[in-house]
Amino acid sequence: MAYDGTDFVGWQRQKNGRTVQEVLERTFRKILQEDVHVTGAGRTDSGVHAKGQVAHLAIRSSMPIPVLQQALNAILPPDILVRSIRVVPAGFHARYSVKSKWYRYQIWNSPLRPLFERPWVFHFPKRLNVARMKRAAKLLQGRHDFRPFRSTGSVNGSTSRSLKSLTLQKKGPLIWIDAKADGFLYHMVRRIVGLLLEVGKGSVPLQEIPSLLKGKSALVPPTAPARGLCLMEVHYA
Amino acid sequence: MAYDGTDFVGWQRQKNGRTVQEVLERTFRKILQEDVHVTGAGRTDSGVHAKGQVAHLAIRSSMPIPVLQQALNAILPPDILVRSIRVVPAGFHARYSVKSKWYRYQIWNSPLRPLFERPWVFHFPKRLNVARMKRAAKLLQGRHDFRPFRSTGSVNGSTSRSLKSLTLQKKGPLIWIDAKADGFLYHMVRRIVGLLLEVGKGSVPLQEIPSLLKGKSALVPPTAPARGLCLMEVHYA
Repeated sequence: MAYDGTDFVGWQRQKNGRTVQEVLERTFRKILQEDVHVTGAGRTDSGVHAKGQVAHLAIRSSMPIPVLQQALNAILPPDILVRSIRVVPAGFHARYSVKSKWYRYQIWNSPLRPLFERPWVFHFPKRLNVARMKRAAKLLQGRHDFRPFRSTGSVNGSTSRSLKSLTLQKKGPLIWIDAKADGFLYHMVRRIVGLLLEVGKGSVPLQEIPSLLKGKSALVPPTAPARGLCLMEVHYA
Repeated sequence: MAYDGTDFVGWQRQKNGRTVQEVLERTFRKILQEDVHVTGAGRTDSGVHAKGQVAHLAIRSSMPIPVLQQALNAILPPDILVRSIRVVPAGFHARYSVKSKWYRYQIWNSPLRPLFERPWVFHFPKRLNVARMKRAAKLLQGRHDFRPFRSTGSVNGSTSRSLKSLTLQKKGPLIWIDAKADGFLYHMVRRIVGLLLEVGKGSVPLQEIPSLLKGKSALVPPTAPARGLCLMEVHYA
């Protein structure tokens, strides 16, 4: 699925606010006339976008899949799109079967604010040293304890993750930050971006990064705004 | 200037509805504390977008131009952006001095509807024969009487225009239709696109185009929706 996160309070169903999960479940129920529960690969936060979110659900209906997809996209609001549907083996779980995920963060680095791109970028008007940010990104790659990048209030468990790649690309006023990992802690991408922004501004020296990853720094990386973040792909193999 | 036409009833000031001209004039007055009148290169319709609209105005203020631009972009709503400002010779007129304009129309040609692109494309889900549309575009190029492409209710005067180029490019699900001319009649681009869509669907044969341009056809090209249209550039030389 793809969705524009602007008008959602996030993926996960909650008491107040419009969520992707709730809108999807309501639409499935309307079409299939049966109770469904949708499980997503990742619970994106309020304002975070998705081009490749994945979810699973069990249904009794034998409605042909192309018909189901057409009905969904006809009834779903314009800010959610079901890109494809397939039948999976019984053991498949949208979250537990995930092998890796790819997130992209878009920074609009120009004194002029964005216009058409404004819903999906974070506008940072001052100069950033992208070369230094690239060096910082290299230091963050690999398996580390990403505890300093986790927001308080997250669940317990191991905070070690393998950041397979963290790369930056400059495309005119845009800076793309692509992060691929076997898993992400709560707010981890946005705090990685927050740290890279500090490095790009010159507020944090590169030497701080190894000590941060060893748990030997008091630095708390700021959380970059949600609007720049997009879940690009979820991989199961 | 650039603007997202979605929430405007067009460029030109009018009694009811939010217009680009009125929002611009109000913002200039707020900053300069003097009465201003803004004249645009082209009066884009309700829902039409712009990446390169041009307007002129006369001011008494001696506020430095970079300061004026920063103030404008800080106060203007997020769907209008002033991309640059320059001082022009006294004889310059944003509309009368125009040598040519470039409009782009974006068709989203895919069974799947657009998501992130939805505000600036026209979704056409059925197959289009782009090769035939390209041949039709070639026939429309050049100086012709474009009267059949003018919407009723437009002002009088010559309906002859020089369509310098009309080209199509396919980019994945997108089809870009680029039209460059010394001037455009009211709804001319949208009716050209409407005709190309008929040709692409197979509803209008290529042979109809020469007779249409000679005023010997009863065919009235349909007007394609505003949301796909964008004023890209205005040229003065």
